[in-house]
Amino acid sequence: MTGTADAASTLDLPATRRAVETCLDDFLGGKQLLAAEHGMPGEVVQTLRAFVRAGGKRMRPLLCVCGWLAGGGRGDWAAVVRTAASLELFHTFALIHDDVMDHSTTRRGKPTVHRALAARHEAFRGREAAGGLGISAAVLVGDLALVWADELLHTAGLAPGRLAAVLPVLDAMRSEVMYGQYLDLLATGNPSEDIGLPLKVIRYKTARYTIERPMHIGVTLAGAGPAVLEACTAFALPLGEAFQLRDDVLGVFGDPEQTGKPVLDDLRAGKHTVLIALALQRANAGQAAILRSLVGTPDLDESGAARVRDILSATGARTEVERMIRDRRMQAQQSLGSAPFPAGVVEVLRQMAETATARIT
Amino acid sequence: MTGTADAASTLDLPATRRAVETCLDDFLGGKQLLAAEHGMPGEVVQTLRAFVRAGGKRMRPLLCVCGWLAGGGRGDWAAVVRTAASLELFHTFALIHDDVMDHSTTRRGKPTVHRALAARHEAFRGREAAGGLGISAAVLVGDLALVWADELLHTAGLAPGRLAAVLPVLDAMRSEVMYGQYLDLLATGNPSEDIGLPLKVIRYKTARYTIERPMHIGVTLAGAGPAVLEACTAFALPLGEAFQLRDDVLGVFGDPEQTGKPVLDDLRAGKHTVLIALALQRANAGQAAILRSLVGTPDLDESGAARVRDILSATGARTEVERMIRDRRMQAQQSLGSAPFPAGVVEVLRQMAETATARIT
Repeated sequence: MTGTADAASTLDLPATRRAVETCLDDFLGGKQLLAAEHGMPGEVVQTLRAFVRAGGKRMRPLLCVCGWLAGGGRGDWAAVVRTAASLELFHTFALIHDDVMDHSTTRRGKPTVHRALAARHEAFRGREAAGGLGISAAVLVGDLALVWADELLHTAGLAPGRLAAVLPVLDAMRSEVMYGQYLDLLATGNPSEDIGLPLKVIRYKTARYTIERPMHIGVTLAGAGPAVLEACTAFALPLGEAFQLRDDVLGVFGDPEQTGKPVLDDLRAGKHTVLIALALQRANAGQAAILRSLVGTPDLDESGAARVRDILSATGARTEVERMIRDRRMQAQQSLGSAPFPAGVVEVLRQMAETATARIT
Repeated sequence: MTGTADAASTLDLPATRRAVETCLDDFLGGKQLLAAEHGMPGEVVQTLRAFVRAGGKRMRPLLCVCGWLAGGGRGDWAAVVRTAASLELFHTFALIHDDVMDHSTTRRGKPTVHRALAARHEAFRGREAAGGLGISAAVLVGDLALVWADELLHTAGLAPGRLAAVLPVLDAMRSEVMYGQYLDLLATGNPSEDIGLPLKVIRYKTARYTIERPMHIGVTLAGAGPAVLEACTAFALPLGEAFQLRDDVLGVFGDPEQTGKPVLDDLRAGKHTVLIALALQRANAGQAAILRSLVGTPDLDESGAARVRDILSATGARTEVERMIRDRRMQAQQSLGSAPFPAGVVEVLRQMAETATARIT
């Protein structure tokens, strides 16, 4: 475990991120040694470690540390970093299972875990059998990432009472993100004019999971009370919504080179986003017919996507989503004005809110 | 929570089983209310609850309670039952994901969770899309069962120090069963003469997971030390091996009416069991060729299965597995002679060892 008390007191983001990386890599390195010792297949940890190393913004760990500082946390830096890192390993689980469910082929510019595992077994088993094995193996690697995330937390060095206080927050977070994903799963392939449903998915799958709960876990580690928790919520929910709305826009209009996200996947899958719902609301009969025929087409090509983008722009749906992002970002920023957080934390959160919702197209 | 101190002190198995059932059903009933309150899809808990109610021997909860009594546990009955029940909910997760990986269509005489969820969406989405949705939804329902198992444990009412002592045992159990399943996944479809590999799968996927670790969790709840843990291991590992070897025999020779297990699945999948490995070792060239051509054939029919069964018998592989079961059961029974457990617990464990390994064909 690296990281210094200095990094904690001043919230040096790059140093904190490095401490989280080191913690994750050391933990998985230990798992790799154990697997070798017990004669277990090395591909489990190799695949997981490669996926963790391939990138990611580490938002959840950083927001957990922010929550800890917001709650006036002192000392225990290594335990806080280890708890924060466990959120990243949980997120690794979530991404691996999401990619299986979404049939995604790439993530972070590399093959997804189920594709990488299939490729390992293709020469011996043939393509079709290896594809099925890759999916099963990825479900299991995801399961292991989930239980190892718990192990990382359980061995963080927290006092038993502190650990017992964190667990209910973690339990809430896990139910929320899984229900959010379930709602998303049912809605995908069947987009409609309803914007309530995608906003609910955003609330559970992103706003709470990515921003609110990681901060709450940090606050709970620091032993702070309801006022700090509520101030985190007031910041987290609008920011989380803005962040996901931005992600939805980038999923259709973004540059894959910059986002690392294939730009046709959301449209091909027929994701029921606020952007699509608003466009359906505002479309004339001809535009609506085009949207309904193209969105959710698995082999949609670039020219079809261009027609969809034109309608998203022409109906004003894109402009409206940009307005929603702006409003929510402002609401999050304003909440910081009255939040009972140390000034250094407010500054960092303000900066993160800008970065997380910025236009990068 | 029901259950009485009487049930605990005399280890009334039926009463303990009822207490576990009530605990599970109450917990899932609470989840159903919460889902309705938050407008979440009711099918998640409905499917999970129907699956839990459809049956199962509850071996892991009962062995957890046995471990607690073996360790001299006193008081705290409700917390022990809740901890024991959490192992059943974890097992529910494991079965749901295993059935997805094995493409199983029935379990406990009913459609598996992914089939049941697919059936719910077939009318609206068509068969193929519903099949894919059923698999994704079952992965998520399994994930929720896993995190809810944790929540059941976290809210069992254990003192923080006791909970902190149990968590590392649980973490070990979860890694072990998942690695066991991973080994099984890689070996399936490719059976060989190697009996070391299927014995290793049995050790991790069954012996530790089903018998040893549930007992260890109970012992840890009771606060007992290494001598009791070691005596549990001495009983659990041979019994667990005998239990799985019996299951492998029933998977080929059993009566589906009695076992609830489709009798062609293991052969069709090409499970690499000790039974098949021994038969391959002892087969002459003609028998080996027949085994290799039939075992692992997805559309194997009853007449093909009958030919495989004849070879398993003619080579003496079946007799040898029966001998292995007998030896291991005897070893487990003998271990009880010197175990530092109360007499009532020894009697119950002796009975469970007989039942779990009995021939029911």
